[in-house]
Amino acid sequence: MLKAPTFPTDLITPALRSLSEALFSQLRDRSFDGIGVSRETYGPSETEAMELIETTARQHGLESSWDGARNMRISLPGCDPSLPVVATGSHLDSVPQGGNFDGAAGVIAGLVALLAAKDQPTHHRSMELYALRGEESAWFGGPCYFGSRALFGLLGPADLTSPHRDSGSPLSDQMSACGVDMGMIERGEPLRRPDDFHAWVELHIEQGPVLIAKEKPVGIVTGIRGNIRHRRVVCRGQPAHSGAVPRWLRHDAVLAMSELLMRLDEHWRILLAWGEDLVFTTGIVETDPQEHAVSRVPGQVTFAIEYRSQDKKTLENFGKLLETECDKIAAERGVTFELGGPVKTEPASMSDSLIALAEAQAQAAEIDYEIMPSGAGHDTAVFANAGVPATMVFVRNDKGSHNPDERMDMDDFVMGTEVLARTLIAAADREERFENEQ
Amino acid sequence: MLKAPTFPTDLITPALRSLSEALFSQLRDRSFDGIGVSRETYGPSETEAMELIETTARQHGLESSWDGARNMRISLPGCDPSLPVVATGSHLDSVPQGGNFDGAAGVIAGLVALLAAKDQPTHHRSMELYALRGEESAWFGGPCYFGSRALFGLLGPADLTSPHRDSGSPLSDQMSACGVDMGMIERGEPLRRPDDFHAWVELHIEQGPVLIAKEKPVGIVTGIRGNIRHRRVVCRGQPAHSGAVPRWLRHDAVLAMSELLMRLDEHWRILLAWGEDLVFTTGIVETDPQEHAVSRVPGQVTFAIEYRSQDKKTLENFGKLLETECDKIAAERGVTFELGGPVKTEPASMSDSLIALAEAQAQAAEIDYEIMPSGAGHDTAVFANAGVPATMVFVRNDKGSHNPDERMDMDDFVMGTEVLARTLIAAADREERFENEQ
Repeated sequence: MLKAPTFPTDLITPALRSLSEALFSQLRDRSFDGIGVSRETYGPSETEAMELIETTARQHGLESSWDGARNMRISLPGCDPSLPVVATGSHLDSVPQGGNFDGAAGVIAGLVALLAAKDQPTHHRSMELYALRGEESAWFGGPCYFGSRALFGLLGPADLTSPHRDSGSPLSDQMSACGVDMGMIERGEPLRRPDDFHAWVELHIEQGPVLIAKEKPVGIVTGIRGNIRHRRVVCRGQPAHSGAVPRWLRHDAVLAMSELLMRLDEHWRILLAWGEDLVFTTGIVETDPQEHAVSRVPGQVTFAIEYRSQDKKTLENFGKLLETECDKIAAERGVTFELGGPVKTEPASMSDSLIALAEAQAQAAEIDYEIMPSGAGHDTAVFANAGVPATMVFVRNDKGSHNPDERMDMDDFVMGTEVLARTLIAAADREERFENEQ
Repeated sequence: MLKAPTFPTDLITPALRSLSEALFSQLRDRSFDGIGVSRETYGPSETEAMELIETTARQHGLESSWDGARNMRISLPGCDPSLPVVATGSHLDSVPQGGNFDGAAGVIAGLVALLAAKDQPTHHRSMELYALRGEESAWFGGPCYFGSRALFGLLGPADLTSPHRDSGSPLSDQMSACGVDMGMIERGEPLRRPDDFHAWVELHIEQGPVLIAKEKPVGIVTGIRGNIRHRRVVCRGQPAHSGAVPRWLRHDAVLAMSELLMRLDEHWRILLAWGEDLVFTTGIVETDPQEHAVSRVPGQVTFAIEYRSQDKKTLENFGKLLETECDKIAAERGVTFELGGPVKTEPASMSDSLIALAEAQAQAAEIDYEIMPSGAGHDTAVFANAGVPATMVFVRNDKGSHNPDERMDMDDFVMGTEVLARTLIAAADREERFENEQ
């Protein structure tokens, strides 16, 4: 366990809490769409939100700048500005008709943390807050993490040509309109090197119900789950008369699928008991409307399979189980499974020593926390996979995210931000490197 | 075992086989629609098919008449025409773009059987062939067995107002156009009394693959499966983020449904091993296209459940198992199941002594047969449930029915018709009643 620095009182003062509340309120007012908030990836509403944060930061004496991808950066110089910096941040875009906290909570928490640090004696390393562009996949049909990936020169042609959900125009047009240096982006020139960062810590609302269920205000994140998706698995059996064909002559696609899902559900249960990190979902199931009938043995069913884990090995092994069970059931029931090429997103491990540091801060501040994975993806995965030691602080939140009903309590936000601020400050005064284990 | 009468040679002579082939060929020519055959319930193509059979019967010296529901009847008087008659028959309508044998095989076989009996010394009881109207459910959106139900005064307003699949006009219009006495039908006046019939035997192609799989040309039917249908079962769980919600906090509707189907599949396997007659099918499954996604835990799934048995008690008991398993899984997984009011069709038991007589005929003729249930419904169920001792003779048939690819071999048809003719003749010379056990 790393030693926690001692702070005489809470870093997040009532004044900083009020500032946070005011910022959330102004953000909501500026991007309310009648149902939720809409802050569009590389759109004017995202820029406006970034400018609100910038203006507030400058009013409080912090410096700001915009990089070649039009990410916005707030800086608090340390004693030795030549050293790798301690950085925090999140995104300011939302899904259409989304909630006010997904993304924005991390940017506002980062600003407040830097202001809290500014009131302390100057720290060893500089601290930075990033308001990152375009984290949501909703606006350009799938690709996401544009701002953080641009930071490391990782945007490719498939990203830049992604069509806007409404207008259909490519992302590159919308980026240009925001003033992005497209030549630099297209050449894949990194805007920062991973070595520029000593550590990255992102605060985010939890998008699941774990902290609610565990009655804890804060989570410290051990890893961001990667996933493997088979968007359209086809199981083919043989259509038949539901009355005239006995069990031993059937090749029922729906029962074959059900058996596969039950076997995977049982593997999942056992793997959790073994301590593996795993979630498994079949979110879409459909028999063929052109063919199916109440009185017809189903000859075909299509369904989706997605599984996620923090651990690359677990993903690989579950994939092997999936194939093995498909083969077994195909042989037993006389059906076929076409899994279709999987789409993979790599998991990202958080830095153990950085996690330990954050835990120590939470303990010193007497804030109850849960050690947990992130099931959803985040910009932090881009930092971690680029080689930056990273972790995240989750804040308890009811009703999920990507909807107007997100419910984050300000008490919880202040506790999460207290942990964030203490962790950033402790990291800024730490000389030795945090490890990154990607 | 009832004693078989002895016939010196096969009753179905090469001449009768040729006649059958010619009739199948003429029927197909007259009702070919470019893809399959279409003989419409209470339509001109059905009437034309009936007239072809009538003309042929009269050419061979048999009598014909049409009843108040415009069913057509061919008669071969026995020594004592006052006795209850031995009857056979089937229907002459087909599904749209259907096959040539479903229905027609039973009418042609019945005609050939009467002609074979006519060449024998006169039998004790009269024999009748019915060409029944409107057996298929395809033309008027569900209701069916119109001709046989009219015979016993069983058509109701819901039948008579059923809209035609294309024109939307009610069945009663189409019946009127065929010359049906609608007043009589609407008053529910029976055209025949069950006691008028000593026995009813219907030949039909098998609509499943059992005789193909067992390599037997002929089946003798022990019962017609009834069924219970839940057309739209709704399982409701809770939608959730597929990455952020762990297993213990999920209420996954698709996994709950899969577990239900697997438990029912296992009950089915065991009940078959116990000797119960049962088939179970989930032909339709759908998650909600408005809500579902690859990365969303499914909050809802709708699916159909149908199960069939010859045995009313088995249907009842399987229904109880279904409810019990729904309750258990609902409690275990935190979901709900709405089964929706089931639609029930009663099973029909065949007459054991009539089955025994048919078996004895098949054995005497050295024709290999299978004792089996009928999974599909037939007019015979209407006769049996009205109180007429009944059974069916199935003829081996590949590729199912209700499609242009039905494949009945003429050798198999002749063997089935041989069993039918011998059974009708033996029944016509039998004094004591066959039992009916509905």
